Amino acid sequence: MSVDEFALIDLIVAELGDRAQGDWVRLGPGDDGCVIEPVAGRQWVASVDTLIPDVHFPGAAPAELIGYRALMVSLSDLAAMGATPRYVLVALSLPQPDAQWVCALARGMAEAARTCDVYICGGNLAKGSLNITVSAHGDCDGARLLLRSGARPGDRVCVSGVLGGAAACVRTNQLNPGTRFIPGTRLTPVQERYFLPRARFDLIDKLADASAAAIDISDGLVADAGHLARASRVALHLDSTAVPVHPDARLQDALYGGDDYEILCTTPKPVAGLIPVGEVVQGSGVYLDGARVTQGGYQHF
Amino acid sequence: MSVDEFALIDLIVAELGDRAQGDWVRLGPGDDGCVIEPVAGRQWVASVDTLIPDVHFPGAAPAELIGYRALMVSLSDLAAMGATPRYVLVALSLPQPDAQWVCALARGMAEAARTCDVYICGGNLAKGSLNITVSAHGDCDGARLLLRSGARPGDRVCVSGVLGGAAACVRTNQLNPGTRFIPGTRLTPVQERYFLPRARFDLIDKLADASAAAIDISDGLVADAGHLARASRVALHLDSTAVPVHPDARLQDALYGGDDYEILCTTPKPVAGLIPVGEVVQGSGVYLDGARVTQGGYQHF
Repeated sequence: MSVDEFALIDLIVAELGDRAQGDWVRLGPGDDGCVIEPVAGRQWVASVDTLIPDVHFPGAAPAELIGYRALMVSLSDLAAMGATPRYVLVALSLPQPDAQWVCALARGMAEAARTCDVYICGGNLAKGSLNITVSAHGDCDGARLLLRSGARPGDRVCVSGVLGGAAACVRTNQLNPGTRFIPGTRLTPVQERYFLPRARFDLIDKLADASAAAIDISDGLVADAGHLARASRVALHLDSTAVPVHPDARLQDALYGGDDYEILCTTPKPVAGLIPVGEVVQGSGVYLDGARVTQGGYQHF
Repeated sequence: MSVDEFALIDLIVAELGDRAQGDWVRLGPGDDGCVIEPVAGRQWVASVDTLIPDVHFPGAAPAELIGYRALMVSLSDLAAMGATPRYVLVALSLPQPDAQWVCALARGMAEAARTCDVYICGGNLAKGSLNITVSAHGDCDGARLLLRSGARPGDRVCVSGVLGGAAACVRTNQLNPGTRFIPGTRLTPVQERYFLPRARFDLIDKLADASAAAIDISDGLVADAGHLARASRVALHLDSTAVPVHPDARLQDALYGGDDYEILCTTPKPVAGLIPVGEVVQGSGVYLDGARVTQGGYQHF
């Protein structure tokens, strides 16, 4: 039996049964991260991501950039939950112990960790096909969690920045910058968007104050709007003319391309700095300029 | 530059620099798990393990058994730190979305999770070579942590049970039981030791009361004794005649074979139920029946 990614996740969660959520697990699979509260008080938020060469990143790119991006992508899930990042664990599978490559990877990860004030305090090395798996952990006051399920009809839909840059980098074959990692230099603007994403921890207080529902845009605006709509059991109406498009990208990149790691959110009130791109209404699914969109996001299988 | 596993880990930790430990990270890389304390009180303990087919488990074995073992192996690190297990995240890379296999894997993991009262509340699916990465998380009162660094000259060295069974399973080519997962049935005694290890959470209170230093025996008794000796800056003297050998195993399996996941510990006082196998003395390294042992444990590269 071969099934698509989301159907397979549903099957796995069904097999886990009582083990997926309960007791000190306040929120199991289905959001950007899970929420754990073994003793009353602050919640832990946790997420895990795997990056495979030439699926999730260009294998020939500089290891510093691969490491930087791998860490930021994983931390972005914590930002989308409103959690303060605390630590990550990195499991690395390598065909050979190439110390120079691995050290460059670690250097890029450390740089991203410094940017987000998070520690890389544990890990694992194994011999195998190249696989970078990062589990990311943060804490949060429970009342300030940003869940996918919190969108309400009447909320405005916003994004946190320009979209499409990372997708334009992929589309224009700029995935091998062939340079060592020097933030801000030698990369084109769209390469910066692809290789040096920012996890938007700068927004989490503002979003929590605004009672936002949130998701990070990893699969693409329309696809992630679909995830948020489904979790909240509402419809999201998007206005394509309002979507902020990266100057070197096209509207299609901004709507359907992933990898930008900006935040898509819904809020009852206006929030300074966020860019309104639509509204939440009763119903289901995503509408673009009034027309229902068939999902077109990234599928792993 | 090609280096061995432990040298590579040292290089990585050096690259991480200030990001490996500090602030709320009480203990970074180097023990069975790291220790995090973002607010004063109970510590979180975290560890991550990767299992690759035909390196860390037989790829043709029943998926239920692979899943059960993968979870237990990862949880064992928490037991060796004295932490109560709370949740795990599972990152699974698969060449194809074989739902039947994945569901059996999840079933085995859920069974192990039930045994240890832990939740599998998050994960990730990716397309790639088969790779099972489990990050395991628990909490602990800081004063009751079981660290590798706590062994003192004069302590007795103990193990928590018979050793060598899992290694005998490998040596006698019993790695494909060709059966569905039914705990306690159809597996030979050494298959049970290999496929159905127990993370020894039943011992953590007793070990903490005894101020034990501890490590789980994954690489082999002698190799793990070496890790403990190095972390504590002491020598461990082992008496081979005292080592409890599984009835279907040989002494060599018990000394040098890994995968048993019993606990190796040192304690100042006798502890009921633990089997004394030697003593801690000033110095460095591991001595077997009085002779210095050159390390012979598992190396990933």
